[in-house]
Amino acid sequence: MKQVEVGIIMGSSSDAPIMRQAIEVLKKFDIGYEFSVVSAHRSPQRMFDYAASAEGRGLKIIIAGAGGAAHLPGMVAAITTLPVVGVPIKSSNSLDGWDSLLSIVQMPGDIPVATVGVNGAKNAGLLAVQIPATHNAELRAQLAQMKKENNDKVTKMNETLEQF
Amino acid sequence: MKQVEVGIIMGSSSDAPIMRQAIEVLKKFDIGYEFSVVSAHRSPQRMFDYAASAEGRGLKIIIAGAGGAAHLPGMVAAITTLPVVGVPIKSSNSLDGWDSLLSIVQMPGDIPVATVGVNGAKNAGLLAVQIPATHNAELRAQLAQMKKENNDKVTKMNETLEQF
Amino acid sequence: MKQVEVGIIMGSSSDAPIMRQAIEVLKKFDIGYEFSVVSAHRSPQRMFDYAASAEGRGLKIIIAGAGGAAHLPGMVAAITTLPVVGVPIKSSNSLDGWDSLLSIVQMPGDIPVATVGVNGAKNAGLLAVQIPATHNAELRAQLAQMKKENNDKVTKMNETLEQF
Amino acid sequence: MKQVEVGIIMGSSSDAPIMRQAIEVLKKFDIGYEFSVVSAHRSPQRMFDYAASAEGRGLKIIIAGAGGAAHLPGMVAAITTLPVVGVPIKSSNSLDGWDSLLSIVQMPGDIPVATVGVNGAKNAGLLAVQIPATHNAELRAQLAQMKKENNDKVTKMNETLEQF
Amino acid sequence: MKQVEVGIIMGSSSDAPIMRQAIEVLKKFDIGYEFSVVSAHRSPQRMFDYAASAEGRGLKIIIAGAGGAAHLPGMVAAITTLPVVGVPIKSSNSLDGWDSLLSIVQMPGDIPVATVGVNGAKNAGLLAVQIPATHNAELRAQLAQMKKENNDKVTKMNETLEQF
Amino acid sequence: MKQVEVGIIMGSSSDAPIMRQAIEVLKKFDIGYEFSVVSAHRSPQRMFDYAASAEGRGLKIIIAGAGGAAHLPGMVAAITTLPVVGVPIKSSNSLDGWDSLLSIVQMPGDIPVATVGVNGAKNAGLLAVQIPATHNAELRAQLAQMKKENNDKVTKMNETLEQF
Amino acid sequence: MKQVEVGIIMGSSSDAPIMRQAIEVLKKFDIGYEFSVVSAHRSPQRMFDYAASAEGRGLKIIIAGAGGAAHLPGMVAAITTLPVVGVPIKSSNSLDGWDSLLSIVQMPGDIPVATVGVNGAKNAGLLAVQIPATHNAELRAQLAQMKKENNDKVTKMNETLEQF
Amino acid sequence: MKQVEVGIIMGSSSDAPIMRQAIEVLKKFDIGYEFSVVSAHRSPQRMFDYAASAEGRGLKIIIAGAGGAAHLPGMVAAITTLPVVGVPIKSSNSLDGWDSLLSIVQMPGDIPVATVGVNGAKNAGLLAVQIPATHNAELRAQLAQMKKENNDKVTKMNETLEQF
Repeated sequence: MKQVEVGIIMGSSSDAPIMRQAIEVLKKFDIGYEFSVVSAHRSPQRMFDYAASAEGRGLKIIIAGAGGAAHLPGMVAAITTLPVVGVPIKSSNSLDGWDSLLSIVQMPGDIPVATVGVNGAKNAGLLAVQIPATHNAELRAQLAQMKKENNDKVTKMNETLEQF
Repeated sequence: MKQVEVGIIMGSSSDAPIMRQAIEVLKKFDIGYEFSVVSAHRSPQRMFDYAASAEGRGLKIIIAGAGGAAHLPGMVAAITTLPVVGVPIKSSNSLDGWDSLLSIVQMPGDIPVATVGVNGAKNAGLLAVQIPATHNAELRAQLAQMKKENNDKVTKMNETLEQF
Repeated sequence: MKQVEVGIIMGSSSDAPIMRQAIEVLKKFDIGYEFSVVSAHRSPQRMFDYAASAEGRGLKIIIAGAGGAAHLPGMVAAITTLPVVGVPIKSSNSLDGWDSLLSIVQMPGDIPVATVGVNGAKNAGLLAVQIPATHNAELRAQLAQMKKENNDKVTKMNETLEQF
Repeated sequence: MKQVEVGIIMGSSSDAPIMRQAIEVLKKFDIGYEFSVVSAHRSPQRMFDYAASAEGRGLKIIIAGAGGAAHLPGMVAAITTLPVVGVPIKSSNSLDGWDSLLSIVQMPGDIPVATVGVNGAKNAGLLAVQIPATHNAELRAQLAQMKKENNDKVTKMNETLEQF
Repeated sequence: MKQVEVGIIMGSSSDAPIMRQAIEVLKKFDIGYEFSVVSAHRSPQRMFDYAASAEGRGLKIIIAGAGGAAHLPGMVAAITTLPVVGVPIKSSNSLDGWDSLLSIVQMPGDIPVATVGVNGAKNAGLLAVQIPATHNAELRAQLAQMKKENNDKVTKMNETLEQF
Repeated sequence: MKQVEVGIIMGSSSDAPIMRQAIEVLKKFDIGYEFSVVSAHRSPQRMFDYAASAEGRGLKIIIAGAGGAAHLPGMVAAITTLPVVGVPIKSSNSLDGWDSLLSIVQMPGDIPVATVGVNGAKNAGLLAVQIPATHNAELRAQLAQMKKENNDKVTKMNETLEQF
Repeated sequence: MKQVEVGIIMGSSSDAPIMRQAIEVLKKFDIGYEFSVVSAHRSPQRMFDYAASAEGRGLKIIIAGAGGAAHLPGMVAAITTLPVVGVPIKSSNSLDGWDSLLSIVQMPGDIPVATVGVNGAKNAGLLAVQIPATHNAELRAQLAQMKKENNDKVTKMNETLEQF
Repeated sequence: MKQVEVGIIMGSSSDAPIMRQAIEVLKKFDIGYEFSVVSAHRSPQRMFDYAASAEGRGLKIIIAGAGGAAHLPGMVAAITTLPVVGVPIKSSNSLDGWDSLLSIVQMPGDIPVATVGVNGAKNAGLLAVQIPATHNAELRAQLAQMKKENNDKVTKMNETLEQF
């Protein structure tokens, strides 16, 4: 059975449609993950326990998504020494994502959160591939291959682009 | 010795000059307080313990100030059932206070933070008077007296205002 | 008959769908309330009278919701010594709620408004429970129970979360 | 003695340096004015009385300046039928003037405030000239003369502009 | 035939649905108006001629609505000495109305535009009533009556408000 | 004598320190220019005449800088068919440049203004070189040389950068 | 066969509906263009090659549209000496266009991007006409004709505008 | 000699005072780094070469700081498969850091940039420690020790905090 290396958490199951974009990336690169709801505000003890036990349970990276006054990524980063990737969610109760973004990215010195764009869970997943890839040549090769495919998509787009 | 009813906390001692404005109000109304640094990010366990023990230690209200990605008020509110008053601080690493304000006020349903204006520690202190005043006629009389004095200040301003 | 302790007011009946979220909380905690339209702009005398008479009529807390250039919470706070909870409404004529939020939260020193997030009437209701709970052990127990239920909801979400 | 036609009010005497720019305009056009501090928040009854008595006392126009959660112009407009000109002040406790501007300009339908730019008291003074000028040919001639002088200033600027 | 006293102009006929709210007010108060498209950008000469001839044609007030980089109100104010009321329109090509608002309200000293809220054409119409009302007791009485009706609407809202 | 090809205008002589950065570029590339104050708001007729006569006087490009509710670039673009480059100025009466930027860049369809960054007069000057360079190989060579020099500056920076 | 003078590029084919508005302008003025997808992020080498070869291939102007963290216009401008017109796109992953606008317009000194409004591809097309028109009297005549037609549209709008 | 694992780059040597904060962290954790100016706009080929060669030269992580329309982090991320940490700089030509932040964090799907707060180079340095720490127990122990020291600092602050 595959080792779980990435913990994907979010403040509410309503964030799942966005956060699943990170899962898709991890599956493509065959990296073990776990996926759960961990609310800093509704389940602070669970959040605390999750963050405090993460390293011991073998996790390498935590991806945390939240909206509005989004405290989950920063609080997890306060507790664990693992790299935490923060995903600002443009939820229904957020001010178009501005609150989510600022309350995740503007962390004080000493407690980093690697923040991606609003609703950018796909990129959070990719960071969770790039990090182990720093010491894994095969993953690096796969990432290089993905870059090539991205480039090919541009070529395809041009082949089908109507010139008007 | 006076019972400590209000816990005033802040993310860093650099927030003290602002937060002391709350103390001045509490002293004026002769309400017992304690004042300490409790960083959600640098001392998460202390924050957790502070919030979890607050009610048991006899606190009635917590005033929490923080800047940037300001998680302290919201996290304390997640743990305690006491009313939490949040003070957004315009600290040097904040985006002119916008990040502090949004990451305090935009809390999700079920976990309120009573937010005051940016650097509004004086008003936080006053909320911590108004709350016990709801069942304390003497405090209400003092608050009414303060309103009268505020009005008198306007009268004074007009007496000395140069008409040009 | 139950004593009315919380006055819930709003600038227009179009704000009612949001403001009723505060009522639901108060009903759950069995706290007496009254609910009415009090416009600072269309009925300034009514607003004045409402605020000036609130304490005498036995109210303990006022929850005021308004949108756009939202003056109701701050004006009521200028007149009464009761704690005022402000709810910024994202109404059709507001700039996505930014105007509502800023014109409620940015009160000058001496006149606090305990502001919740945009459309955050549920949290306003909870503050109106937390305030009497500071001297009511039963209410505190109920609030603790609610926190437990919030935590249970997270557990439930995890039980039904599809792992993909 | 000259009839007082314009009431200039502000939330605090600290707003006076800005608001005096309106006075300078009115003096230049020889229009009677009065100048006072009327705080919606610290002296609500004075504000109420001021607005309610303004028409009876012969005022034609009210210029009101305020900063932060600036409620003075809108509340005065709620009470009087006179035209109210609002001046958003970028005060020390404001968010760079954004809160002042939005809480003055975003008034609901039925209660207009004629808003000028941030710290734009000079233009407020000019509106208080343009309004009586609608039925006063001499004032219109003076305004036309001022426009000519503005144009002449541009000519002067060009005469002294170093071409490098 | 009624004298035309208010010129209502807008940058495009697509702004008409908003701007007609000003007309409804003027009709209610029986004030003569004219309504036309005058684009500062597409018809600068027409704009110039309109503004330059307005006073001579007997207009007393100009209401100008525009969206995006909204130059119409400010340019008309640059040319005429009549009071100009600016209506920021949240048009499809605007940044949610922020650009419209700022490019109308932030006029330099010497050239005022009396700005109302975003899409606030109704209030623009009311300013165009309040201005002649400064020397017309009957209009003032009608405005006072309207204030009374506004207040009655609040009473009505309360009579039909479901208490839950 | 050198043909004047670029007209550099600004709303006030206080904008000159910024706008001279455009002049320095034009001098370096030996392109003829003229420099003057043309205020859309204080000298609308001069603005009109300037824009209407520009092509006839042999100008090829107009660079216009303005702050606050910045109408100069857009109005000139409304009148002339020459390309107009707009420079948003962060003047003392502007909201940190946001108003200047939005009121210049957000032009409606059919009337373009080529906008540069806030206070970006240097880049405005460069656009006024790039445009004639489209049909002038020598200018293109000079621009290529400048790019080389820019690159060399980076090399220099690295040679002197302390490694710590 | 017509010489291609304008290169229109965009970060993704999803930007095509907006960018085609530039094509329509160029077709109307009979200016040769090419249209393709060139992503700075997905195809950086293609972007590099496109920009580096543009001048040699006879292009005179490049129009580049992009959304979110929009780097395409600025990077192309870094590589070529041709004038680059930037079109901020309000794409689904952008913060209502604010990120697109700021990351295009706020270029550092020495590397200009002529920025148009959000989704302003039509105006980008017009700049690509105005630039060659600086040395082409026929194009200038066509542009003057277009201005006349714009003015006629305003006249038409007025002929059909219902007076209410 | 120590292996260089982290490449720290910035758009200009004026960003060095901020970016050196990352160096201080790396020195403390004894991680090899290199430090240089690589401007996406002034030295695009150098940027391209730097990014393309980074992996081959043994770099594991790139930290890139830039201000205004900040394209450096995103362009490097487009070219390399290494994780890129972006530092938004509040430079003199930026809109208070908003442009820097948005043009770094709002990257499209497939090309992540791990963004830290405005001027947050210290946290960028820490991410560059946390990433190798995912497979280095000693580094993890050092990070845990740093967390302990952060907590101790809070204890110290409390020991010296004047209670008033």
